[in-house]
Amino acid sequence: MPHLVVLYTGNLDRDLDMNGFCRTLADTMLQARDEQGEQVFPTGGTRVFALPAPYFAVADGKRDYAFMYLNLRMGRGRSEGVRKQVGEALLATAQQALTPVFERRLIGVTLQVDQGDESFGAKHSNIHPLFAKG
Amino acid sequence: MPHLVVLYTGNLDRDLDMNGFCRTLADTMLQARDEQGEQVFPTGGTRVFALPAPYFAVADGKRDYAFMYLNLRMGRGRSEGVRKQVGEALLATAQQALTPVFERRLIGVTLQVDQGDESFGAKHSNIHPLFAKG
Amino acid sequence: MPHLVVLYTGNLDRDLDMNGFCRTLADTMLQARDEQGEQVFPTGGTRVFALPAPYFAVADGKRDYAFMYLNLRMGRGRSEGVRKQVGEALLATAQQALTPVFERRLIGVTLQVDQGDESFGAKHSNIHPLFAKG
Repeated sequence: MPHLVVLYTGNLDRDLDMNGFCRTLADTMLQARDEQGEQVFPTGGTRVFALPAPYFAVADGKRDYAFMYLNLRMGRGRSEGVRKQVGEALLATAQQALTPVFERRLIGVTLQVDQGDESFGAKHSNIHPLFAKG
Repeated sequence: MPHLVVLYTGNLDRDLDMNGFCRTLADTMLQARDEQGEQVFPTGGTRVFALPAPYFAVADGKRDYAFMYLNLRMGRGRSEGVRKQVGEALLATAQQALTPVFERRLIGVTLQVDQGDESFGAKHSNIHPLFAKG
Repeated sequence: MPHLVVLYTGNLDRDLDMNGFCRTLADTMLQARDEQGEQVFPTGGTRVFALPAPYFAVADGKRDYAFMYLNLRMGRGRSEGVRKQVGEALLATAQQALTPVFERRLIGVTLQVDQGDESFGAKHSNIHPLFAKG
């Protein structure tokens, strides 16, 4: 159940094709491979949500700053190396997509990868079976 | 401070009465009882928030997939049995409400129950006193 | 990377200048000092996001209740005293700003400070250098 949430200041909406940005991040997740060469995230469970915050405050508020926060939550059981590799790949993807934005405005991007404490978890899906292994 | 956040792909907005869905989930939370038969969540502190993500990417992106993520955060001190019971009840409620949606489209639902690390917590409310025990 | 997310029931949008509210909370964060008198949060990394939930359910749903949830995530390494002080300062700021709202409607406010498990974290910013120490 990999789960990437992109939370960003609403002033970025004019600067980016956000659906395309989500797709690029999802593709980065799907391309991740572990130490055994296996796909890290199941295709049917991979999703990216992007939410603009209509109200916000950044730094000292004296300029039109923008901010984007990427929070990936992935299940337990993956190695530290895999978490780091996935985190770095996502940040690299975001940086590349945001290059034109960084060139013309003041923006900060932060990414955090969590495993969560998940006291209980469950799911129900008719997407997963479409990508079941043969 | 039970706190349920429903984050979903915006393409679900046409498929569901989301305020009614939130109410049904809140009622499920209010009906939960612990091993001593006591109400698990205080009425005045129970809330459900639902947020559509206007931008998203799911699985391989080749079809109009939908996704819904339910994240319950409940205070520490409840037993593992209570957390599991509440999680299962919420997923069952969601599955039932989403039955017509599952019949006509591709959708995944994931629920996670967390306790959080809560380094500090505080609250201020004029709703709680309305439901104080006599 | 201090990160404050304000999630609130959409029925509060008429009651509050939410951008001003975010600014006041950000200023409270910027004013925080640790035991050595140092600024707790770097100016360039401080941000507040406020998101109205368009759909929600609170308590028994029999009245027009409102709810606001403030979730601060701050990096590890700060003392328990600093976390408590920051949490209390943020709640006091919120309570003061919400005083007129508390006078005329039923509302609950909850604040939680987390450190997260952050398996991996990284950032990229052209805001930080603006506030670099000389």
